Amino acid sequence: MTIRVDQERLWRRLMTLAEHGATAAGGVNRQAFSAEDASARQLIVGWAEDLGFEVSTDAIGNLFVRRPGSDPDAPPVISGSHLDSQPTGGKFDGAYGVMAAFEAIEAIGDANVETRRSIEAVGWVNEEGSRFQPGMMGSQFFCGHHTLEEVRPLRDAHGVELAGEIQRLIGATPHVRMRDTGFDVSAYVEAHIEQGPRLEAADTTIGVVDSVQGLRWFAIEVLGEAAHAGTTPRAAKRDAFVVARRIIAAAEAVATDEDDTIRFTVGRFEVEPGTPNTVPSRVFFTIDLRHPEQATLDRVTATIEAACADAAPCQASVERTEDVPPTIFDPIVVDEVERAARASGQSWMRMVSGAGHDAMALSLRCPSGMIFVPCERGISHNELEAARPSDVAAGAQVLADTLVALANR
Amino acid sequence: MTIRVDQERLWRRLMTLAEHGATAAGGVNRQAFSAEDASARQLIVGWAEDLGFEVSTDAIGNLFVRRPGSDPDAPPVISGSHLDSQPTGGKFDGAYGVMAAFEAIEAIGDANVETRRSIEAVGWVNEEGSRFQPGMMGSQFFCGHHTLEEVRPLRDAHGVELAGEIQRLIGATPHVRMRDTGFDVSAYVEAHIEQGPRLEAADTTIGVVDSVQGLRWFAIEVLGEAAHAGTTPRAAKRDAFVVARRIIAAAEAVATDEDDTIRFTVGRFEVEPGTPNTVPSRVFFTIDLRHPEQATLDRVTATIEAACADAAPCQASVERTEDVPPTIFDPIVVDEVERAARASGQSWMRMVSGAGHDAMALSLRCPSGMIFVPCERGISHNELEAARPSDVAAGAQVLADTLVALANR
Repeated sequence: MTIRVDQERLWRRLMTLAEHGATAAGGVNRQAFSAEDASARQLIVGWAEDLGFEVSTDAIGNLFVRRPGSDPDAPPVISGSHLDSQPTGGKFDGAYGVMAAFEAIEAIGDANVETRRSIEAVGWVNEEGSRFQPGMMGSQFFCGHHTLEEVRPLRDAHGVELAGEIQRLIGATPHVRMRDTGFDVSAYVEAHIEQGPRLEAADTTIGVVDSVQGLRWFAIEVLGEAAHAGTTPRAAKRDAFVVARRIIAAAEAVATDEDDTIRFTVGRFEVEPGTPNTVPSRVFFTIDLRHPEQATLDRVTATIEAACADAAPCQASVERTEDVPPTIFDPIVVDEVERAARASGQSWMRMVSGAGHDAMALSLRCPSGMIFVPCERGISHNELEAARPSDVAAGAQVLADTLVALANR
Repeated sequence: MTIRVDQERLWRRLMTLAEHGATAAGGVNRQAFSAEDASARQLIVGWAEDLGFEVSTDAIGNLFVRRPGSDPDAPPVISGSHLDSQPTGGKFDGAYGVMAAFEAIEAIGDANVETRRSIEAVGWVNEEGSRFQPGMMGSQFFCGHHTLEEVRPLRDAHGVELAGEIQRLIGATPHVRMRDTGFDVSAYVEAHIEQGPRLEAADTTIGVVDSVQGLRWFAIEVLGEAAHAGTTPRAAKRDAFVVARRIIAAAEAVATDEDDTIRFTVGRFEVEPGTPNTVPSRVFFTIDLRHPEQATLDRVTATIEAACADAAPCQASVERTEDVPPTIFDPIVVDEVERAARASGQSWMRMVSGAGHDAMALSLRCPSGMIFVPCERGISHNELEAARPSDVAAGAQVLADTLVALANR
């Protein structure tokens, strides 16, 4: 029987979930381990229990909703995203992936389709990392990157310890079964809004995500000498601002690729002493560099480092503060997503994820992949974040079909 | 008889004056109308009275020390600078010009040289403007740019009203004769450290200053749109930082003159929201532009304004927050300075002043000019400000000879 996701039901659940942490401006503030995070959890557990799904959690609070397969010993296929939001986040980032997976297993059940493997919808805790760093904490914990002992002593900006917050979150649904950390899984698929403008610009509904671009952050300090702006000839200046601009121009020149794939952003830039008539003695700035290929990251990095080494008449130092290699998703999953997208009759395209996601952690544990749907003007991490009901449903449909295919492998 | 300034006496007086407001780092903090400013005033009045000079003041506190000429009705030649300093200033900025004029009239007296016009050494109040804005207040008041009624209600950052501070300063030397504001003067000459590196670089002792470059300040705001650094293609970005850099590059290209006369400085530059992974939505920056010729200022201004008008995909607005036209000093004074420099046997050169000085105000009242001496590495507005005793004396010698020539015209 054909599986048909219910657009109206999925949208209603998303809007109901968005009430947990709703902001006046129409967004969501549901930070990890907050009271809103706990009440969202209670909501989903209630829905799952009403439908007779089996609910479980692990020691950090990741939440699993299981539709059993015919082979109880076969590792399940899991699908989801995160339930927490940015402080001024939107209704879809994370929440969509969890509710799409929930809708998928309900629609599979509605169609009385039997799968060999169980399929589980998952809500990972603390992907955003806005209260407790690092982000992607739940998925990385599941995959063995952190132990409970490592994260329990972490504190938020108000000094609240994570250990107690985990207990509070898990305690909000006390009857939920506790499960082993990082149980065996067969494959992982994550649905998400794109958080970028490419699908919308291409008038395309489904993004078949085959990779996540790598990221490097650079922190660069240029030291010159303060001087009187009116009396110091150009040849005598050691102007940290001029040299910072030169470094950025050199880096930007190699980062300006014809196919517009390199992401290059100077987001923080501070000048000292910062008065109009004083030649700057110090500039501090950051570069955020991203690309799907390590070789390209290396090439731009080499230019940045060379430009910093050649900073006369100033001195420049460069520090690499983040270095996340590109993620290449497993063809087993990507091909199934593409097949399902093609079968759905929706427009689709292969694409690279610009942002990081829980699927990056999972990809190191099992074959993984992602499905993107458009979001309005690419706006995300913003209360204005918006997506269309039909797109959201189309993504859930592709997800459901993909999950069934993977669960029968 | 030949006039000979006394290098040792001048240096000793400069060092004694520098004790009033001396800082631990070897500089001076003698802000206008402070207790230190008042005690420096008492010191100079004491020296003048010991030598039998006639001392007077005006309603804002400018201080005059007079050596009478043979014709009491002829408007005097006056010479000086300011006694106040920056909060972290040096021993020479301003103080040198006052003490050089004082030494000049004493040396003229020592030589029993009679002049037709009286010669007066002057200490202008509040040139720096660090407590009460605007700066050059005393000289501008003398020249009729401000009335007492306009400046009396001004307050410093602590809310202290200028009216009371003026009374306190004048009250520190209560027996000093009060004089009419802006009495007739015949000519004005100001000695000053260069506050720039050109004399030192040219191994030259005397700068014959024939002009002060014009100055324009621009405050530029670029508005773009915040976006996710990882997901937003270059073509979709409205990056305020990129556009700000483009505006600056266009302006700098026309401001990079072969003879290194244009002064072009971006001293303040602020980026919002200022996080590494967000495309900047707003940049605010300043341009400090200076040149001796109005036409050049106009040319660079046109480029700045055109670049701001062409700020797509952002929007830029530009405001001119300062606009001081170039000052051309009167050949009557400049030629006398040059003659005296030539006669002194010192190395000398014609030059443009990069910084603003009280002489700019006086130049609108009477023939005016300036004499520069080198300062170490061009460093000024800094506790490290330094000058050599021999240079300081050479400048005072040229000043004394110039004053005699002007006083006999």
